[in-house]
Amino acid sequence: MNYRIEKDTLGEIKVPLEKLWGAQTERSRNNFKIGEEASMPKEIIYAFAYLKKAAAHTNRDLGVLETEKCHLISEVCDEILLGKHDDQFPLVIWQTGSGTQSNMNVNEVIANRCHQLAGKTIGEGEKTIAPNDDVNKSQSSNDTFPTAMHIATYKSIVEITIPYVQKLRDTLYKKSEKFKDVIKIGRTHLMDATPLSLGQEFSGYVSQLDHATEAIKNTLGHLSELALGGTAVGTGINTPKGYSQLVAKYIAKYTELPFVSARNKFESLAAHDAIVESHGALRQLAVSLNKIANDIRLMASGPRSGIGEIIIPANEPGSSIMPGKVNPTQCEAMTMVCAQVMGNDVAIGVGGAQGHYELNVFKPMMANNILQSARLLGDACMSFEKHCASGIEPNHSRIEELVSNSLMLVTALNTKIGYYKAAEIANKAHKEGVTLKEAALSLNYLTEKEFNQWVRPELMTKGLD
Amino acid sequence: MNYRIEKDTLGEIKVPLEKLWGAQTERSRNNFKIGEEASMPKEIIYAFAYLKKAAAHTNRDLGVLETEKCHLISEVCDEILLGKHDDQFPLVIWQTGSGTQSNMNVNEVIANRCHQLAGKTIGEGEKTIAPNDDVNKSQSSNDTFPTAMHIATYKSIVEITIPYVQKLRDTLYKKSEKFKDVIKIGRTHLMDATPLSLGQEFSGYVSQLDHATEAIKNTLGHLSELALGGTAVGTGINTPKGYSQLVAKYIAKYTELPFVSARNKFESLAAHDAIVESHGALRQLAVSLNKIANDIRLMASGPRSGIGEIIIPANEPGSSIMPGKVNPTQCEAMTMVCAQVMGNDVAIGVGGAQGHYELNVFKPMMANNILQSARLLGDACMSFEKHCASGIEPNHSRIEELVSNSLMLVTALNTKIGYYKAAEIANKAHKEGVTLKEAALSLNYLTEKEFNQWVRPELMTKGLD
Amino acid sequence: MNYRIEKDTLGEIKVPLEKLWGAQTERSRNNFKIGEEASMPKEIIYAFAYLKKAAAHTNRDLGVLETEKCHLISEVCDEILLGKHDDQFPLVIWQTGSGTQSNMNVNEVIANRCHQLAGKTIGEGEKTIAPNDDVNKSQSSNDTFPTAMHIATYKSIVEITIPYVQKLRDTLYKKSEKFKDVIKIGRTHLMDATPLSLGQEFSGYVSQLDHATEAIKNTLGHLSELALGGTAVGTGINTPKGYSQLVAKYIAKYTELPFVSARNKFESLAAHDAIVESHGALRQLAVSLNKIANDIRLMASGPRSGIGEIIIPANEPGSSIMPGKVNPTQCEAMTMVCAQVMGNDVAIGVGGAQGHYELNVFKPMMANNILQSARLLGDACMSFEKHCASGIEPNHSRIEELVSNSLMLVTALNTKIGYYKAAEIANKAHKEGVTLKEAALSLNYLTEKEFNQWVRPELMTKGLD
Amino acid sequence: MNYRIEKDTLGEIKVPLEKLWGAQTERSRNNFKIGEEASMPKEIIYAFAYLKKAAAHTNRDLGVLETEKCHLISEVCDEILLGKHDDQFPLVIWQTGSGTQSNMNVNEVIANRCHQLAGKTIGEGEKTIAPNDDVNKSQSSNDTFPTAMHIATYKSIVEITIPYVQKLRDTLYKKSEKFKDVIKIGRTHLMDATPLSLGQEFSGYVSQLDHATEAIKNTLGHLSELALGGTAVGTGINTPKGYSQLVAKYIAKYTELPFVSARNKFESLAAHDAIVESHGALRQLAVSLNKIANDIRLMASGPRSGIGEIIIPANEPGSSIMPGKVNPTQCEAMTMVCAQVMGNDVAIGVGGAQGHYELNVFKPMMANNILQSARLLGDACMSFEKHCASGIEPNHSRIEELVSNSLMLVTALNTKIGYYKAAEIANKAHKEGVTLKEAALSLNYLTEKEFNQWVRPELMTKGLD
Repeated sequence: MNYRIEKDTLGEIKVPLEKLWGAQTERSRNNFKIGEEASMPKEIIYAFAYLKKAAAHTNRDLGVLETEKCHLISEVCDEILLGKHDDQFPLVIWQTGSGTQSNMNVNEVIANRCHQLAGKTIGEGEKTIAPNDDVNKSQSSNDTFPTAMHIATYKSIVEITIPYVQKLRDTLYKKSEKFKDVIKIGRTHLMDATPLSLGQEFSGYVSQLDHATEAIKNTLGHLSELALGGTAVGTGINTPKGYSQLVAKYIAKYTELPFVSARNKFESLAAHDAIVESHGALRQLAVSLNKIANDIRLMASGPRSGIGEIIIPANEPGSSIMPGKVNPTQCEAMTMVCAQVMGNDVAIGVGGAQGHYELNVFKPMMANNILQSARLLGDACMSFEKHCASGIEPNHSRIEELVSNSLMLVTALNTKIGYYKAAEIANKAHKEGVTLKEAALSLNYLTEKEFNQWVRPELMTKGLD
Repeated sequence: MNYRIEKDTLGEIKVPLEKLWGAQTERSRNNFKIGEEASMPKEIIYAFAYLKKAAAHTNRDLGVLETEKCHLISEVCDEILLGKHDDQFPLVIWQTGSGTQSNMNVNEVIANRCHQLAGKTIGEGEKTIAPNDDVNKSQSSNDTFPTAMHIATYKSIVEITIPYVQKLRDTLYKKSEKFKDVIKIGRTHLMDATPLSLGQEFSGYVSQLDHATEAIKNTLGHLSELALGGTAVGTGINTPKGYSQLVAKYIAKYTELPFVSARNKFESLAAHDAIVESHGALRQLAVSLNKIANDIRLMASGPRSGIGEIIIPANEPGSSIMPGKVNPTQCEAMTMVCAQVMGNDVAIGVGGAQGHYELNVFKPMMANNILQSARLLGDACMSFEKHCASGIEPNHSRIEELVSNSLMLVTALNTKIGYYKAAEIANKAHKEGVTLKEAALSLNYLTEKEFNQWVRPELMTKGLD
Repeated sequence: MNYRIEKDTLGEIKVPLEKLWGAQTERSRNNFKIGEEASMPKEIIYAFAYLKKAAAHTNRDLGVLETEKCHLISEVCDEILLGKHDDQFPLVIWQTGSGTQSNMNVNEVIANRCHQLAGKTIGEGEKTIAPNDDVNKSQSSNDTFPTAMHIATYKSIVEITIPYVQKLRDTLYKKSEKFKDVIKIGRTHLMDATPLSLGQEFSGYVSQLDHATEAIKNTLGHLSELALGGTAVGTGINTPKGYSQLVAKYIAKYTELPFVSARNKFESLAAHDAIVESHGALRQLAVSLNKIANDIRLMASGPRSGIGEIIIPANEPGSSIMPGKVNPTQCEAMTMVCAQVMGNDVAIGVGGAQGHYELNVFKPMMANNILQSARLLGDACMSFEKHCASGIEPNHSRIEELVSNSLMLVTALNTKIGYYKAAEIANKAHKEGVTLKEAALSLNYLTEKEFNQWVRPELMTKGLD
Repeated sequence: MNYRIEKDTLGEIKVPLEKLWGAQTERSRNNFKIGEEASMPKEIIYAFAYLKKAAAHTNRDLGVLETEKCHLISEVCDEILLGKHDDQFPLVIWQTGSGTQSNMNVNEVIANRCHQLAGKTIGEGEKTIAPNDDVNKSQSSNDTFPTAMHIATYKSIVEITIPYVQKLRDTLYKKSEKFKDVIKIGRTHLMDATPLSLGQEFSGYVSQLDHATEAIKNTLGHLSELALGGTAVGTGINTPKGYSQLVAKYIAKYTELPFVSARNKFESLAAHDAIVESHGALRQLAVSLNKIANDIRLMASGPRSGIGEIIIPANEPGSSIMPGKVNPTQCEAMTMVCAQVMGNDVAIGVGGAQGHYELNVFKPMMANNILQSARLLGDACMSFEKHCASGIEPNHSRIEELVSNSLMLVTALNTKIGYYKAAEIANKAHKEGVTLKEAALSLNYLTEKEFNQWVRPELMTKGLD
């Protein structure tokens, strides 16, 4: 491979000739061979593009950057956002915990690309744009990286997680309306209980997803606060007057999201409680989805030796050895995602709790986990909605068979003949393998007419409120 | 010991004569010898007292319970709330996952105590009040236990956690105001960085606690929803018309907290996402407090070989072997609590994710964990505030010594002479063990007058915004 | 209440007259009002009694403690181990993270009780025994507390956890032998699969518990290493020659457990990886038990609308509203314990990871979590064995009904007619609601004789190995 | 793109012409668009290549597969192991929880590639090799996937994790020997304590890593057990006599690792406790490494306002805004990895606990997490060893300055003048800002000669054992 020489405050280093990055990126590549190359999430890189552009414009507006430089930087940021430089960000998550090296990677790529846009070869002549003094002007890794974390996370949540959860929620809502008269046996402790409608069961799932979505939205306020302007330690050293408010406005404008300057920049650098907070809500969503997916595979179990109350789409052959098998594979993908998110939540908590003084140095790890969770939950909801939830149908004959056999219909008699006599009827029916009515009549606790009038599953599903 | 005979649908059983509980409680005592006796949190028992009283009044108002019975039940509930029957609830957390046996424990104690209040000996004559048909009327364990969870948790959070966090926050705020002109060295990556004021550092802690408190408050809406009225599976079977709304109002009235009837009772029984949600916010608080306590013990480290920038109160001899040692013991108690809360969060998530159909059966475990977290966090904040935070004082001489020696003041020169030259000065001073000024002047990058004018720590702590 | 005056290096303090503890205990009571009083586990106190006695004898043997003092200290330790002073240890878990105050609590109680044994009133005359200079001789909280942690944990694991897991394992083994010819449908993905015997299913549980027990035993080596002799920072300052080896021998003798002196005392004070290691194995056990308990409640589900393949004991009325209901309550208690242990594991990891220099200050929290887990797992296994596992019986008629209807018997045909044709038969039978044989014959893929010969569930459960 | 038609039991589907995979792989690609494409770890694919080759040879030996077919399959497996088909495995982790689709992906790629090796175009003529009936002969996804999990994990642990941990351990051991006479101040509770040598401090790290390595090795026995031979549900249906033992031998031969056939195949399919167990040990390692890396960055903190006792290599410019800053970046990468592993541990536990009946369906998620942890820990140790640990040097002047100022040297006087007088000296010195000697002499508790003889840091680091 061909190389060129780049240098930084530590000295010279060889960089692959065709790459736009500089010395600090190259050093990081060599010093951190941990896990897969280029694992720093692309969402972070793009978020950096928004913020570098915003910083350039703010610096220009406030008189500390020439307009020409601003336009060059801005142009490269737009190129990055179009995906034109995706192969210029080779660094890993497992680098310095402030993400300094990825900030410098972006600074270097922008500076060198500006030089090219100015018609020169990299390394030729004076630098058109300096990575530190121009691209990074009025910034520090310590405020840019957390800003990029918030931008990337906020975008992922509102563009991927929430809409796909919403889509699944809407489908489940439609099912709940459609199934509102499908009366089935209820189950508590996995044991037969009083009946409810399949629609009511699904309405619980809808309510869980509604609450989870609200919980996620409740965290967006904290997440909308941007660290930018805090620079090195939160004091805003080396920023021009008015910088932090204006740069937040530019970022809000470019991303079309309601970002604001953080209330307290010391918090923004030293702690990532906003990430902890938002991921806590994603964890809640995972808990909800795990319950829902679990129920659905239990209800779809069978085809002949399980519960079999619903039918889910057969999307693929289920077994490499058992012919004809159809499995709840979307439920499985979903619950695996939920387990991952529950794990990611701990990683984020452990990282978030260990900040020191003016800086938390678990930034890239925290960013990667929340971006992964936001993406996986969104994708899994979309997949589950499309390939499972939307195709769920009741197995009417099975549902009716189960509800009509149930002993728990006896509960309707509590208010008529009391809990103890009702229990006696149920126990007798269970022991003798007879129907509730047979047991009830043989005990002489009520007449057949009364039984028929009182024990009606469809009435038992309607609270009187 | 002397016994009397109680019975339930499974038959007869001996119960200690002087105890108010009945057959089902006694069975549970025998069947679940797991961990310490009587581990079911008292907060849950008291919450049950509120709800049993509210249910009795609602049942009376709606015409399904005689006024006299209502008053008897109500009177016993008041006795329970006064702590008169604390020794009547011997059951453990590790019982049935619906908490049925604790619900029955309460029903049985109330029924037997009513019988006493009616002037009779337990077991004598007809039951004055029946545990199931009267005390538990219009209820099921499946809706009462989650209702008790919400009442107990809400109360603990607003009466213990939030006010004590607030107290700590206020003390830290006062310190941050008081210390606003104490200029100290900043530290990022644990390495010397540009200066800030001690007040600014503390303002970050205040901001963390403000955000954590808001996050906790954001979850109270979900927590204010009560399952009561859902009865067995969420349909509200065996409840009179208007029951769930009215009973929530009574509970709100008795507790003086804004409880409402849950939007969806199927969710309320089958999932405890509200508990997951609120505990997620408590976990965020734990993460914040861990960072703060960690910082404080690092800053207080010494007395001669550590950082030593602040002085914390000496509350006890620090060592059983090293005389004269004073340790940051409140920080240690706090961070142990934080670790516990982070663990409790996982227990709650694991339990919350595993509901089946119409019922989640991890209720007592979830309740115990969130009540423990709410209490420990509150108590730890109170203890930390009183015995540590309120007594924190700056070690002025040490702070000045450290800030004046720092090489990172060089950052102020970035905007004057550029990042590279500034770095050269810092490196030279570091290698040669000289001051920044000496290095700067020997490199001829600026005059002494310029240096004195530009490199002033007190200016570096004020962003220009 | 009446008081006496005690003093320590910080000055005087009032202590309840009838209590044996001294100034440092009293200070801790006042300074750490976090959670319930006296929450420091009794197992830790008893472990301290073993080690204080062993230290006294070692100090005597090595010539640094008078024989008379040794005997007095030893006598009090024996009293503590008999439970005579349980009310003398009022401190909480959430104190200093080294457990110094509980070490001093023990030192003070022993010293004052020795004074009584010497025939004097506390406070009267010269101290017979000094808490620091005598009881704590050749010790530091920093090595005594981790020693107590290891003693208490080792004892709990080998006396409670392992034997009760073993008991459950043996019962499950007996069931697996007894059920070895009960052929039932297998289930993968919760869907019908090829058959196996109920005994085979249970043999998997036995194997899980065997592996879990081995995993726990594998950790005992690390746990048997005692920190004692490291004193303040691991160097063994202020210990006589030969101390650490001899004191470990005494502890081994008194506890009848194979304790040894730790290989490296610096590790023993600064890190509690042995606790992390042992709890990791307890976590594995929790994961195993969760799976087993889950399976059992699924198999026992019903009675009419579930799987219903096994019958579990009916230990209590299942529902406060649904008469006649019997629930898998032991499974529920067990899985709640499992969730708790999974949470405790995180608390222990978070604490274990945060040691600083020569000391980890999350000791009491870590100790409490592992002792709780060891106890809960043991108790839950015992309860589950006694009240559930030992009474499990197959529901033969239901098992036969399900296996004979299954479509997955078709798998036996793979090696005869190939996977694709076999799948065609299964799909046809499923779609048309007919038996496999009917579908097979109508497709003309084999003769009835061949079908009867090849498709025999009892043969399908025996691998040919 | 050009396509060909493939089909399976669900019908026809279009597959990219140049790809070797078949219908089931293509269905999975379409049905599971969750996260990044091709996220199934390559280690799993390679493990499948070993096992498919072993299965082919076993089937041949036992007379159920023609030798020619065996050789073809074997040849393709070797190609896969050489990395020739890395782009043929496009599936994601988040698919069916049994990994069926990745098993089929391997089966299909092998079958189609065999067809090519037999000189034909894919789709041309009769299939040379059938994916199910030949490549998957005597197998099921249910036993192949867990076998691949064990092979891949075992290999990763013994080839990456253990050797790189060992390398770090050896370097730390060398440092501990080299630094054995560098006497420094000890610190407990982050406060000054009695002295120890820097070598002793490092010896604690070595001991932690030794114990962690042993703990990992203790888990390899369980991990060496292979599920293969259990087929669909553990019974070994459709395997020839002698299969499971022989296939394990072949795998052991090809991988040169001591794999054996699992004791109990029902466990092997239904539970992944071996993965839980091994990851538990990796988590322990993470806890150890977190402590070590934390200590090192604390000791290296500075350069002027921190502890500064050691000097670590300066590998890159530390700050984009603060010139001349050098940060403990390797410590940060390491601790981020540790946090991730602690999170992965929870994901694995949550998945492991949720098996149902004969199958755990969290397999790909569990595999991915443990492979990630094994890799990240190994890589991070290597990176940390190379770029940090190997270059650590004591800052002798700073170390001496701190130790000579310390008040904790007073501990040496406990055994001479008693704890109380020693404490008085320390307190006096602290309050008056004088040296210990000055305080001691002014209190007249000992002579200067005694002081000089007794208070010698170098003696305080040597226990007398």
